[in-house]
Amino acid sequence: MKSEQFITGSRHLTVIGAGVIGVSWVALFLAKGFKVVLHDVHINRFEQALAQLEDIRPSLMKLDLNFEIQDLRFEIDLKEAVRNASIIQECGPDRIQFKADLWAEVERFSPPDALFLSSSSGIPTRYQARKMQSPGRLMIGHPFNPPHLIPLVEVVGHKLSSVEQVQRAMEFYRQVGKRPVLLHKEVPGFVANRLQSALLRESMLMVKWGVVNVDELDEIVTQSIGLRWSTGGPFRSFHLGGGAGGFRHFIDHFSRGVQLLWLHSKFSPLRFSKSLTQKILGQIDSSFGSIPLNQLERERDCKQVAVIKALENTTKQ
Amino acid sequence: MKSEQFITGSRHLTVIGAGVIGVSWVALFLAKGFKVVLHDVHINRFEQALAQLEDIRPSLMKLDLNFEIQDLRFEIDLKEAVRNASIIQECGPDRIQFKADLWAEVERFSPPDALFLSSSSGIPTRYQARKMQSPGRLMIGHPFNPPHLIPLVEVVGHKLSSVEQVQRAMEFYRQVGKRPVLLHKEVPGFVANRLQSALLRESMLMVKWGVVNVDELDEIVTQSIGLRWSTGGPFRSFHLGGGAGGFRHFIDHFSRGVQLLWLHSKFSPLRFSKSLTQKILGQIDSSFGSIPLNQLERERDCKQVAVIKALENTTKQ
Repeated sequence: MKSEQFITGSRHLTVIGAGVIGVSWVALFLAKGFKVVLHDVHINRFEQALAQLEDIRPSLMKLDLNFEIQDLRFEIDLKEAVRNASIIQECGPDRIQFKADLWAEVERFSPPDALFLSSSSGIPTRYQARKMQSPGRLMIGHPFNPPHLIPLVEVVGHKLSSVEQVQRAMEFYRQVGKRPVLLHKEVPGFVANRLQSALLRESMLMVKWGVVNVDELDEIVTQSIGLRWSTGGPFRSFHLGGGAGGFRHFIDHFSRGVQLLWLHSKFSPLRFSKSLTQKILGQIDSSFGSIPLNQLERERDCKQVAVIKALENTTKQ
Repeated sequence: MKSEQFITGSRHLTVIGAGVIGVSWVALFLAKGFKVVLHDVHINRFEQALAQLEDIRPSLMKLDLNFEIQDLRFEIDLKEAVRNASIIQECGPDRIQFKADLWAEVERFSPPDALFLSSSSGIPTRYQARKMQSPGRLMIGHPFNPPHLIPLVEVVGHKLSSVEQVQRAMEFYRQVGKRPVLLHKEVPGFVANRLQSALLRESMLMVKWGVVNVDELDEIVTQSIGLRWSTGGPFRSFHLGGGAGGFRHFIDHFSRGVQLLWLHSKFSPLRFSKSLTQKILGQIDSSFGSIPLNQLERERDCKQVAVIKALENTTKQ
């Protein structure tokens, strides 16, 4: 992949926010040949960013990707950071007021054809864009942590976004090796986080009821549905789990049972109560909670790369 | 793994029910060195079973496993099938009356120390065992489809089951290379199917609302949470997704948003209505529904084996 217009021209890609997500995006964009400007108002974040980039490098190298740090420029001044940007991937704090002010500034100082992409996992475009002159320019490009490894990007535009503009966003993500999925409507949490939250609720219910502890719950997921869903989504999986009739057979034979489970769960109250969170945190503390986070992250990313490569190889066959 | 007592003695392992799950268990048990008796009252199932076993063989061979068909005996007479059994893995239809009658028969004709294990995904032991003299002998050993590949077995005993007996079941599953998880309580759907059902509900909601179609939903899952959950369960994943404070940070910053998603979903009615199932089936028909099931199964199992092997290799490192 070459992106000559970015490498040879004066235009660049700007990432706003040097947190975990922002720096992970930076690593990927650099590795895909872009010149990147990383903006943050906290100057101490830049040193952390350099350290995080070096933590990320080995995972990228396993995927035959690498980057040169000289293609990255830090910029504490927002106006300077976006002045020549072709694409702006925003990864700031998920607070409505912050985003609304930020996008108004970005719009004022950036080129009129720059793509505006928000990594927000929760704030709809209509709130983020409410101080913009052309709110239709704003789109969601919501990645999954860590963006340099997990392929999905959920893309959805503001109701005023043009089809052409949304297609430019989709094309950009494909160009950097992502698997963008265009949502036809904007809903709270978008899709992947809604699914995650639904699974988390049932997981917490099982721990609350004492059916399993957090370790056993995690083991159940990694040793069954996690494996399954890395190779096929729920509709395709149930299509294959239903016997000769596929999903029709599944509906005929299992929908009643599934609906009973939904009811059983729906009418079981659950919230992040003090007693439940203490139970969960206590179980975490006495298990993986004592292992340093960066060690757990290394283990996760090592497995993640292995799974991604294994699946790529089966597709090539 | 050698299991001399089964290979050289007159005792054997009996699988009841020659459906998809039963035959998959048979393949694994044979490959792990057991002599297996497969019982079914429908004689035509035996020919299908042989064909299914040959479909399974290539996947097992990729995992350095294989089996010889002469270690398998078909037996249409239940009494004969269980007479010398050490372990009985039941995979009959999930109907209470059927299971209750079956286990009463099995108890009458099998050795007094044989382990009784039900593959049922839904019927609690107290219903299945209600005609047994010693209902405590019955346990759930619930696999995930296909059992010859997916490691998880959910184990839970009847309330009268002894600790020693449950441990024998756990040890047996470990011996055949499974990852058994002992549930501390029996709940409807056990754990993995409750989690699956929760994800399916939210998935169907997204299709109902027109946010995505079934293909896009499946793509979102395989390209994000599926990959993630094949390498770490939800508690460990959220522990790593929450910044420096781990799961505590996640609770502090995201629990309110997650609870809003729960409410949003909870108060959105959903059932397998005619219009929704027709929408889903229509989308499936115009997508993977036209591909023969056995081809889809081969693709799934090829990917499944690749992911399992990749994860095994990272653990060995």
